[in-house]
Amino acid sequence: MALHPLAQALHGTLDTHPSLPYFFSHRGRGIYFPKQGILGQTAEAKGKAINATIGIALDDDGVPLHLPSIQSHIDLPPAEVYPYAPGYGVPELRAAWQDRIRCNNPSLKAAISLPVVTSGLTHALSVAGYLFIDEGDDLIIPQPMWDNYDLLFQHTYGARIRSFPLFHNDEFNIAAFRVALSESSRKKIVLLNFPNNPTGYTPLREEAAAMVDAIRRSAEEGNRIIVLIDDAYFGLNYDERAFSESFFAPLADLHENVLAVKIDGASKEEFAWGFRVAFLTYGIRGLTPEQAEALADKTAGAIRATVSNAPLLQQHLMLRAFNSPTYDEEKRKNAAMLRERYEAAMRALREPAHEDFFRMLPCNSGYFFCVELREGIDAEQVRQMLLADFDTGVIALGSRLLRIAFSSVPVADIPRLVANMIEVCKKTTHTQPRSRGSLPRTEG
Amino acid sequence: MALHPLAQALHGTLDTHPSLPYFFSHRGRGIYFPKQGILGQTAEAKGKAINATIGIALDDDGVPLHLPSIQSHIDLPPAEVYPYAPGYGVPELRAAWQDRIRCNNPSLKAAISLPVVTSGLTHALSVAGYLFIDEGDDLIIPQPMWDNYDLLFQHTYGARIRSFPLFHNDEFNIAAFRVALSESSRKKIVLLNFPNNPTGYTPLREEAAAMVDAIRRSAEEGNRIIVLIDDAYFGLNYDERAFSESFFAPLADLHENVLAVKIDGASKEEFAWGFRVAFLTYGIRGLTPEQAEALADKTAGAIRATVSNAPLLQQHLMLRAFNSPTYDEEKRKNAAMLRERYEAAMRALREPAHEDFFRMLPCNSGYFFCVELREGIDAEQVRQMLLADFDTGVIALGSRLLRIAFSSVPVADIPRLVANMIEVCKKTTHTQPRSRGSLPRTEG
Repeated sequence: MALHPLAQALHGTLDTHPSLPYFFSHRGRGIYFPKQGILGQTAEAKGKAINATIGIALDDDGVPLHLPSIQSHIDLPPAEVYPYAPGYGVPELRAAWQDRIRCNNPSLKAAISLPVVTSGLTHALSVAGYLFIDEGDDLIIPQPMWDNYDLLFQHTYGARIRSFPLFHNDEFNIAAFRVALSESSRKKIVLLNFPNNPTGYTPLREEAAAMVDAIRRSAEEGNRIIVLIDDAYFGLNYDERAFSESFFAPLADLHENVLAVKIDGASKEEFAWGFRVAFLTYGIRGLTPEQAEALADKTAGAIRATVSNAPLLQQHLMLRAFNSPTYDEEKRKNAAMLRERYEAAMRALREPAHEDFFRMLPCNSGYFFCVELREGIDAEQVRQMLLADFDTGVIALGSRLLRIAFSSVPVADIPRLVANMIEVCKKTTHTQPRSRGSLPRTEG
Repeated sequence: MALHPLAQALHGTLDTHPSLPYFFSHRGRGIYFPKQGILGQTAEAKGKAINATIGIALDDDGVPLHLPSIQSHIDLPPAEVYPYAPGYGVPELRAAWQDRIRCNNPSLKAAISLPVVTSGLTHALSVAGYLFIDEGDDLIIPQPMWDNYDLLFQHTYGARIRSFPLFHNDEFNIAAFRVALSESSRKKIVLLNFPNNPTGYTPLREEAAAMVDAIRRSAEEGNRIIVLIDDAYFGLNYDERAFSESFFAPLADLHENVLAVKIDGASKEEFAWGFRVAFLTYGIRGLTPEQAEALADKTAGAIRATVSNAPLLQQHLMLRAFNSPTYDEEKRKNAAMLRERYEAAMRALREPAHEDFFRMLPCNSGYFFCVELREGIDAEQVRQMLLADFDTGVIALGSRLLRIAFSSVPVADIPRLVANMIEVCKKTTHTQPRSRGSLPRTEG
């Protein structure tokens, strides 16, 4: 099918880069932001004395009509609460988020795109799938992984998830990562989610360097690699040896065959999970301002096609927070509480009492830790017994992993949580015959 | 590909209805809500003394961690602002919205599903596309139509839009609708958007009855028909002769071959465009409670796969408004302001001065009216001249239509708006040779 003239124009710009035109899916190649349509015409009419373009309702003074029963709960002006947000997101927020990316990743010096606002992190991942994944494309993800990647990428866009075990001897499994990179098709899509859900692992500095090096070598061999960097838990690191920047920093300017896609948002970083505000930001060696804008245009097109725009109120609440003098201190305080819980969990797991039943997978960041149960102990059975007999909730992943959200357990309860887990494991080993367990895997 | 066991279970339920199993797209057939995964296990652990399932962060008293710099702008408790909303939406809001559907559509007596909350109306339409539209499926929509249907359904899901002219002799074009129903494939998808964007038309009672009758006849011939009812502008009617209920009311119990999908939301009904809260609700003759739940489960699965969940804060703000004693009066007041503008526009267009240049298309509801320019007057040129010389913004749709949002123009400015349009048309007919114009069409 012929491209729409606006999509053609975008690809005219993208074609000036040696690799950018080749990353898109069929659906992604055709998408464009409808600048000439209602949205573009509305933008051109902004500020006119008589403006009959806007598909909202304004009172005689130009204030958005609204319901006082709603407004009484919010102290922002109606213009920051009720109108549609721009399809790309509120411009001030996009600029502020770009500043924060640079500020939090000091080694990032290259040109990057302005972040585009999506309706939460899942939506940012889905938009990346829309733009870049065709039916049958390989998607390389270490296991265990967040179970929703399966619905997001495999079920919705037809990706084939090629997983490899995240750990080998409790280190990042660099050999398996290299093999995965070498075995998949020539266009490769890699998903990196660190701090990791579910393990809470972030690669150490030297591991991160080796991963980046593996991607560089693959790119040098002529492969084109899209790296989706799911930074949901960015910034929550508890170990100085861990790589503290986003993988976006070393990848954004790595090679002209590597498109780095940063996916991050308010959910965890701003302690605002239900806000549904996240961002997509691009980096690639040789990116020009025009190409960066074309990438943002295509992204906004996919947003228009799926949700129109992200919630406005939360975008302004985030801006208000960024401009508050106490904001940094507030975030530090919350992060310190999570660190205390992490440390309490590590202390509790240092006791040798659990070693007959499970071992912790490497964990140095994020919200969670995982334990791998000894062969013959069934994760679902442990979970059920913890619920029924110990008033304790954990997540079972596959047959041998338990995921523990230390993020939501007070420090004082953490020793009891671990003790309960040990107690249940003891019981199950007395009540069931030992059998050879399968390898740990998560659903999906 | 084999269905996931959870999808199989849902289809086990849907298969107990004679038609329900046959409406789904390939993608829709496979989707399921991951009840056995992290979400289901988290639900089971709710209220436990130690709960390490939740992927958010709580303080030692179980209150969601948050930033005071944000909270200072909102007077709802943090539990209504920061956590993830349930994937199906806040239960109280789903129940309240279902009540409102019944209350606003007194003739609706049949069983319907509980509404599922999506991230705005566009997302509800997109989820419907996810569930029901396969590449190449026919989608019947009267023209002119909202331009985003093209990206939403044609570009994203591969639908073939089969349009027919909305009007014939300034009445709903029932003959063309019947032809469209008879010509498309055996599985038919129809989109009804009344009050209409862009024309502001709602069919009169007898026209609505004829439309429903046409759908019934097609169903009786053995066709399976999905009717997507885009009720974005529901309730804004200015003419007693217009059909005042949603088409969902007569379609929800019409025939076992007709699946009625109601798509509505806060954007226009609650004067909260940027809230991003909308709903998907199902009705079909013979619907059992179990089938209704299976439809909601599949819908929540598609939501999980695309955005995870809708914003929480706005769901609670809507609930607060519904429970406010002044809510009904507030809505009436806003609706009255829109009606005054509509009436001012109709008065201005009653003057014969414009008749040499354009005529209004039938309009009795909603936010907009459209004028069709006389042959030889170019819509884009008129729009540009209105912007440049008359400080006036309107929307050009194709070569011969202008869309005017009376919703955003004060009553006092409306005569001048119409006068400006006439003035520009006069100028263009003096400066350009008459040519035979093309038929009016909107982009997409």
